[in-house]
Amino acid sequence: MNAYDKLKFNSDGLIPAIIQDNQDGRVLMMAWMNRASIETTVATGKTHFWSRSRQKFWMKGESSGHVQIVKEISFDCDGDTLLIKVDQTGAACHEGYRSCFFRSFDKGGAAERVTEPQLIPPDQIYGKK
Amino acid sequence: MNAYDKLKFNSDGLIPAIIQDNQDGRVLMMAWMNRASIETTVATGKTHFWSRSRQKFWMKGESSGHVQIVKEISFDCDGDTLLIKVDQTGAACHEGYRSCFFRSFDKGGAAERVTEPQLIPPDQIYGKK
Repeated sequence: MNAYDKLKFNSDGLIPAIIQDNQDGRVLMMAWMNRASIETTVATGKTHFWSRSRQKFWMKGESSGHVQIVKEISFDCDGDTLLIKVDQTGAACHEGYRSCFFRSFDKGGAAERVTEPQLIPPDQIYGKK
Repeated sequence: MNAYDKLKFNSDGLIPAIIQDNQDGRVLMMAWMNRASIETTVATGKTHFWSRSRQKFWMKGESSGHVQIVKEISFDCDGDTLLIKVDQTGAACHEGYRSCFFRSFDKGGAAERVTEPQLIPPDQIYGKK
């Protein structure tokens, strides 16, 4: 059966995609895809998303150079979430961290702690504004 | 700063939570939490979610025994996704697989392939109906 037929998109035509580093399993980010961005991701081998805030189709790394080369696309039992393993160039996070999940709950959520070093200052990723 | 203050819930008061195996980094599932289920997850050390289909608060493993012991709760740069590392008992997936992401795209999405063995038949998890 065609894998696309197993996918369920939400009322906005979107499905969440978890992006995981293919080398060591670090979860890098979560972003949203529509049918077209999945097809382009498959066709090009680089992740493409739909930005809900900008209402715009975008390729990861199009301005930063921090592209993601797709190694595997999985989907869950309900067909409503994707898991995509990638080889990540540079920092996945726009704040310059390798993973967007660089902060964790501390003291039961009463505080937070940063769990990894910043790889590059954001103004060096996108240029000073 | 209180970590809860960094979180952004959607218009239904929900935030997606990626559940990852603390031992080897396998992504096990994705489910939704509201503020109360995060607080109960923190307080009990076991994952609790909000079921959108059943409109019901539930503890993972409440009927199957396949509970998840929380090791770390992280959140992403936008504060709109959680990543929770757990020690998983048994199968995370209600279909009896260790991970809900047991199927991958094959032939560019024209087919699918199962990537891990079923650990237990579903009727042995929940009892025959």
